[in-house]
Amino acid sequence: MDRTELLSFYDQVRSLSEALCQPMEIEDYVLQAMEDASPPLWNLAHTSWFFEQFLLRDFETNFVPYNETYLYLFNSYYLLAGPRHSRSRRGLISRPTVKEMYAYRHNIDERVHALLESLSEEDIPATRYIIVLGLNHEQQHQELLLTDHKYNLSINPLRPAYRNDLPLDRKHITGHGQIDPQWVAFPEGPRVIGYGENGFYYDNEAPVHKVYLHPFALRSTLVTNREYLQFIEDGGYDRPELWLSDGWIAREKEGWESPLYWEKQDGRWSTFTFGGMRELAADEPVTHISHYEADAFAAWAGKRLPTEFEWETAVKEERIVPDASKHTMLDDMRLHPCSPIPDDSSTLLQMYGDVWEWTNSAYLPYPGFYQAEGAVGEYNGKFMSGQRVLKGGSCVTPSDHIRPTYRNFWHPDKRWQFTGIRLATEV
Amino acid sequence: MDRTELLSFYDQVRSLSEALCQPMEIEDYVLQAMEDASPPLWNLAHTSWFFEQFLLRDFETNFVPYNETYLYLFNSYYLLAGPRHSRSRRGLISRPTVKEMYAYRHNIDERVHALLESLSEEDIPATRYIIVLGLNHEQQHQELLLTDHKYNLSINPLRPAYRNDLPLDRKHITGHGQIDPQWVAFPEGPRVIGYGENGFYYDNEAPVHKVYLHPFALRSTLVTNREYLQFIEDGGYDRPELWLSDGWIAREKEGWESPLYWEKQDGRWSTFTFGGMRELAADEPVTHISHYEADAFAAWAGKRLPTEFEWETAVKEERIVPDASKHTMLDDMRLHPCSPIPDDSSTLLQMYGDVWEWTNSAYLPYPGFYQAEGAVGEYNGKFMSGQRVLKGGSCVTPSDHIRPTYRNFWHPDKRWQFTGIRLATEV
Amino acid sequence: MDRTELLSFYDQVRSLSEALCQPMEIEDYVLQAMEDASPPLWNLAHTSWFFEQFLLRDFETNFVPYNETYLYLFNSYYLLAGPRHSRSRRGLISRPTVKEMYAYRHNIDERVHALLESLSEEDIPATRYIIVLGLNHEQQHQELLLTDHKYNLSINPLRPAYRNDLPLDRKHITGHGQIDPQWVAFPEGPRVIGYGENGFYYDNEAPVHKVYLHPFALRSTLVTNREYLQFIEDGGYDRPELWLSDGWIAREKEGWESPLYWEKQDGRWSTFTFGGMRELAADEPVTHISHYEADAFAAWAGKRLPTEFEWETAVKEERIVPDASKHTMLDDMRLHPCSPIPDDSSTLLQMYGDVWEWTNSAYLPYPGFYQAEGAVGEYNGKFMSGQRVLKGGSCVTPSDHIRPTYRNFWHPDKRWQFTGIRLATEV
Amino acid sequence: MDRTELLSFYDQVRSLSEALCQPMEIEDYVLQAMEDASPPLWNLAHTSWFFEQFLLRDFETNFVPYNETYLYLFNSYYLLAGPRHSRSRRGLISRPTVKEMYAYRHNIDERVHALLESLSEEDIPATRYIIVLGLNHEQQHQELLLTDHKYNLSINPLRPAYRNDLPLDRKHITGHGQIDPQWVAFPEGPRVIGYGENGFYYDNEAPVHKVYLHPFALRSTLVTNREYLQFIEDGGYDRPELWLSDGWIAREKEGWESPLYWEKQDGRWSTFTFGGMRELAADEPVTHISHYEADAFAAWAGKRLPTEFEWETAVKEERIVPDASKHTMLDDMRLHPCSPIPDDSSTLLQMYGDVWEWTNSAYLPYPGFYQAEGAVGEYNGKFMSGQRVLKGGSCVTPSDHIRPTYRNFWHPDKRWQFTGIRLATEV
Repeated sequence: MDRTELLSFYDQVRSLSEALCQPMEIEDYVLQAMEDASPPLWNLAHTSWFFEQFLLRDFETNFVPYNETYLYLFNSYYLLAGPRHSRSRRGLISRPTVKEMYAYRHNIDERVHALLESLSEEDIPATRYIIVLGLNHEQQHQELLLTDHKYNLSINPLRPAYRNDLPLDRKHITGHGQIDPQWVAFPEGPRVIGYGENGFYYDNEAPVHKVYLHPFALRSTLVTNREYLQFIEDGGYDRPELWLSDGWIAREKEGWESPLYWEKQDGRWSTFTFGGMRELAADEPVTHISHYEADAFAAWAGKRLPTEFEWETAVKEERIVPDASKHTMLDDMRLHPCSPIPDDSSTLLQMYGDVWEWTNSAYLPYPGFYQAEGAVGEYNGKFMSGQRVLKGGSCVTPSDHIRPTYRNFWHPDKRWQFTGIRLATEV
Repeated sequence: MDRTELLSFYDQVRSLSEALCQPMEIEDYVLQAMEDASPPLWNLAHTSWFFEQFLLRDFETNFVPYNETYLYLFNSYYLLAGPRHSRSRRGLISRPTVKEMYAYRHNIDERVHALLESLSEEDIPATRYIIVLGLNHEQQHQELLLTDHKYNLSINPLRPAYRNDLPLDRKHITGHGQIDPQWVAFPEGPRVIGYGENGFYYDNEAPVHKVYLHPFALRSTLVTNREYLQFIEDGGYDRPELWLSDGWIAREKEGWESPLYWEKQDGRWSTFTFGGMRELAADEPVTHISHYEADAFAAWAGKRLPTEFEWETAVKEERIVPDASKHTMLDDMRLHPCSPIPDDSSTLLQMYGDVWEWTNSAYLPYPGFYQAEGAVGEYNGKFMSGQRVLKGGSCVTPSDHIRPTYRNFWHPDKRWQFTGIRLATEV
Repeated sequence: MDRTELLSFYDQVRSLSEALCQPMEIEDYVLQAMEDASPPLWNLAHTSWFFEQFLLRDFETNFVPYNETYLYLFNSYYLLAGPRHSRSRRGLISRPTVKEMYAYRHNIDERVHALLESLSEEDIPATRYIIVLGLNHEQQHQELLLTDHKYNLSINPLRPAYRNDLPLDRKHITGHGQIDPQWVAFPEGPRVIGYGENGFYYDNEAPVHKVYLHPFALRSTLVTNREYLQFIEDGGYDRPELWLSDGWIAREKEGWESPLYWEKQDGRWSTFTFGGMRELAADEPVTHISHYEADAFAAWAGKRLPTEFEWETAVKEERIVPDASKHTMLDDMRLHPCSPIPDDSSTLLQMYGDVWEWTNSAYLPYPGFYQAEGAVGEYNGKFMSGQRVLKGGSCVTPSDHIRPTYRNFWHPDKRWQFTGIRLATEV
Repeated sequence: MDRTELLSFYDQVRSLSEALCQPMEIEDYVLQAMEDASPPLWNLAHTSWFFEQFLLRDFETNFVPYNETYLYLFNSYYLLAGPRHSRSRRGLISRPTVKEMYAYRHNIDERVHALLESLSEEDIPATRYIIVLGLNHEQQHQELLLTDHKYNLSINPLRPAYRNDLPLDRKHITGHGQIDPQWVAFPEGPRVIGYGENGFYYDNEAPVHKVYLHPFALRSTLVTNREYLQFIEDGGYDRPELWLSDGWIAREKEGWESPLYWEKQDGRWSTFTFGGMRELAADEPVTHISHYEADAFAAWAGKRLPTEFEWETAVKEERIVPDASKHTMLDDMRLHPCSPIPDDSSTLLQMYGDVWEWTNSAYLPYPGFYQAEGAVGEYNGKFMSGQRVLKGGSCVTPSDHIRPTYRNFWHPDKRWQFTGIRLATEV
């Protein structure tokens, strides 16, 4: 990317973040309904802090912090960047106000522009990595802006909608013909894994290395709400033999009896969406489930979850690439209903932009993984413990943020992301 | 009170509540920084719910709830009035918005007006009690609006002020001559306690009854910050022999080393006020302390706290009555600095409108106490366990809400009210 | 008491403590099934520590601690006596073994004997107070030895008995004629309260002072299991209007639906006793209830609990004194069944030695109460917050440890003592 | 194994469990100082329950449970075997007494003998698997008997020893010549992993399959206390950049500043051993550390932990097999000091029987892993989430329970096992 492309990418990402917040009320900006779900105000400020802390502080002449306390309030988990406000208390902060936060945001924008425009051509490369990293970072927070906000609204007994102008495609509720799932098989042998191209990637996608795979098959389609209901009706939530031990403990502690956001009234299921409560659509991919539920469903179905290596191999060998022209809900929400949608267009279906697919792989370093020095090194490496890899990208992932080697990761009990199930099996 | 006086009282109280919120930002309205400190939005809605639930529901023709979910959201602790939203989750609610909440509030105002104006003269008395109760209830929430909001702002590292236009009387910081405390003595014998006049009172102030007092003396002045600092500097927070057992446990668990809101930097103490952080004023009454701290201070001083009966007897026998013309900070904040102020005008000083004075009396029923039927009966009686009585009224109590027999009560570990210390002793 | 009487009292109390433990297995000695219920080993060691710490340390020539670590392990809550082992971890200690603990105990006994025998006649008085205090302290722990042990056994699914040789008087199960409760009335006026005789008393029973009582009546009998069952069957545990607020919160949190130790199987109630599970006896006094349950029962019955002053006045004016010849269960368990027993012998019945009777009085200092200097001063005074006074003594209180002015105290949620209900009313 | 060999193996394992408990006091048997550390009584009973539940119930004619309540008390986590006593409350149970537990144990022994002796030759194979599984299960509990007991004793301020007759080899304290660590390198390529021989193995060691390894080297020796002290002195516990995020959170929450059992007094380190507190031996392998500490140490040293596949490959290719004649501490404690010992005898040193070596592998199923039906299937498979694999066996693992393919697993925060560090690196 040259200077112009950088500025253009910068403006595009930064303005999308703000656009996503336009349907919100000022009151919504300060809410944090659980520790994981940060307030929109915080998300917008933190993504600005990232540029101030990691770009401007190092490259701006005569850098002065916009506000010393903001450095404390809007640091997330970068221990080497200094002390930080407690994560669980982000929703107890009403100042800066939304207006003041936007002033901060726009000040950062101006200074990033000024910096970029003032750099000599040969100084551009030195800043490029951190700018692109900051924008990818902000893209991750765009997804969080929506999933956090969805959660924050969901616990209000009024069940308010994020937007009231969202289309509602009735087809996929009544069923537009269920898709017959196929099993796509892959042979045994060593495979190459990891990002080896020229674009941006996170450190955890490298180095390129080999793994050895045994024969396996992936199901062509995601598990649907229809199928998940069969699991529920077959007592799936009451049969410990289907569950991992930690999963069963979580199920009992949390009282899970269905995916997050599902509600049953008078025998009918509905689910909370960006458009408020809506009838459950049978053929949509099931979503908002923990890894534990995904694993239990797979056990019930007599299958298993794929490894991250099987998943990556499958899309590479089937040459399934993200379609940049197929906007996700995040890119243009008006083109979409409120949830992931069914798809029947090709061989391995729904691999990108529907739901994050839980894998059976623990989130661990690739052989030869190297963690960068300093606070930026905290981005990915330190989380390589106790989490699972997810692949594919969801309906609220920016479409240019999706790639085959992307490794998302969450603790196995998390449910507020658009997470779903792809089945695999030995062959 | 006749119809006109009722309406006038109604309008005065309801509009003061809103006036108190004018300096707030919309973001402030939804904050709940601890379970005790409800969001301003909730306080304003709950006081409207009170009239809807206990007045309109019973007296309005063809009553229809404004919004069924509001009945759930804005009930506080009235178990007999139906299910209610969890107290600890009041700060997780961004809807109704502030604007919608005011619409609700004004709808209630219109309906109360309409009801009152439509009643025949003989039907007035039937509604009077509940209207006056509702307005006294709202006056209590006016105090909470300010103390809750103070707490909510205080935990923000930016330490924002509630108002930036508050006067700062420097005199009482440097000391305008310390007041020499006097000891006012009272003889042994039976005394009459409780409210026996014709105005409004809470059920817990009745019935009038006798207690037997032994000789005692009250100090003429409240304990000052200057004195409390001596306690701190003498190791008061590190000497368990001065503390009640439950108090010492609380001190260790909470890490208390000074009153709430005090901060020490570079050897100087400052304190958080409605006007932001300000230098500690040595001659102001110490405030924002728990009963445990008040009791430990008294032990350190070789004195004790008064009983509620001693306190009430003292003001009655010294004929000290609340001065309606002496507005508290709540009535007109512009006339006041940000904290309780010293006073040197008469014999027993600072008995009303400075700080709530912790007594050594447990909050218990008077002999013959009778709890009303139904949800209104939950107002006071069910709290007669584990709490202490406080007397006198604070600088944010409405001045017409203060009377000698008033019994305020809090659990002994609470610190976010304007609470302080009056010493007593045997003679 | 002279030297001989002191030694005799000492030997009697110390040997009774050990006799009470004879039916225990070694494994029982180290159990602590909840924070309140200390292991028998700890109780026996702590009561020895008391003499070592407060008597021998001050009066023995060349005092050397038996074991420095014991000073830490067996201090309970005497903050001024030095650091101490965490109360909640007393059950995690297997050493000293039972045998080693008895060796410690007997070493203390020998040294106390040697000390007492070596003192000159004029030095006796100086030690008398602390010896008698230590023995009264041990008598309190004798009651705890039994109630703690009962609790510790109760949570074992095998429901083991403390003793298998306890008589079972079937009469009081089938009912030997229910006793008709009478109401004994007392007139208005000032009364004298507190201990004013020549024997031993705790500091919290002094000074003698006056209170003013309004007309009241006490019921002649304790509330029975039969009556309490009516409360349960009338939905007593499901009607919040009967409960104090803190009580309702405790009921919901703990899931109380009956007194502690009650179990219902196949429609019949049984209760855990020192002799294991036994059928509930309808005419026995209800016991093992919290203050909250006692208060709710009284509200349901349209009555109230007495104050401690009413209770003390009643026994004094009716001249009901503890009968030293009527041994409690603790004095001679073979003479008793496993629970408090009904009684029909006089006017105010069951005032002593059946159950501790919850009063409506908070545990507070009497006017002029003075707390002793030093660690011994921690005995009573520092607990004067958040607790309720109980009167009368239970079936496991030593009979010579019961007197009209005795003020027992517990937090209102405690249920593992033999606590019960006496009703009072205005007249 | 034929009938005779089975009986011999049975008797050997069962009697060793009891022998390990001989140095304990009766009081020790019922202690549970943390949820992980079960009481010895429970361990001895549970291993008997295993045979009753999974062998006798299925194969004994006219099976009758020894005691219905024991089925409840001594089930651990076999959800399909019925309800069970809460793990965290195992230390609150004093009955059955130790004597009664041994009676239960010996009853099971007699019935297993009788069963085995009565089976026809052709029926032996049907019971063989469950008997051998039960004995391997008991061997695991032998290790726990010691590590749990060590923990239970350690928190007693008296720091009692498990045995007072243990040898103390001073050589390895002063250092018998430090061993120069070597790096043993292995080339890239696919490797075969898993158990493929004829003996007993756990289901999690199968199926045999291939993995692809990149070039790596293992250090010949374990990390020593001497090296770990350098890590501590270099601020290892205060430098978040060295730690996994979950690890840093655990460190802060638990206040870790050294391995478990280490204590520093007057500048000298000592550690709690089976023989009580002893001076820290500089050249012994560091032990009692969490995975988080192992990982942080490796980061500090500029290395990493090996994967389980690297470890298994290394011992297979270097032909390092467990030496059955080299008894571990558990087999004969008199031959050993109280801790893992240094070793200087061959190329890859200390691979077996010193400490369990944390790997960088998550505990996950091998490709094609199959979980058995029924409660026995709960043995291993359901724990494949959130845990790390450990290899090699510790000084308290029975020596015939150690093999190259053995996969031990613990959550990464556990420290009470003999766990240690082997470093690996890319080459």
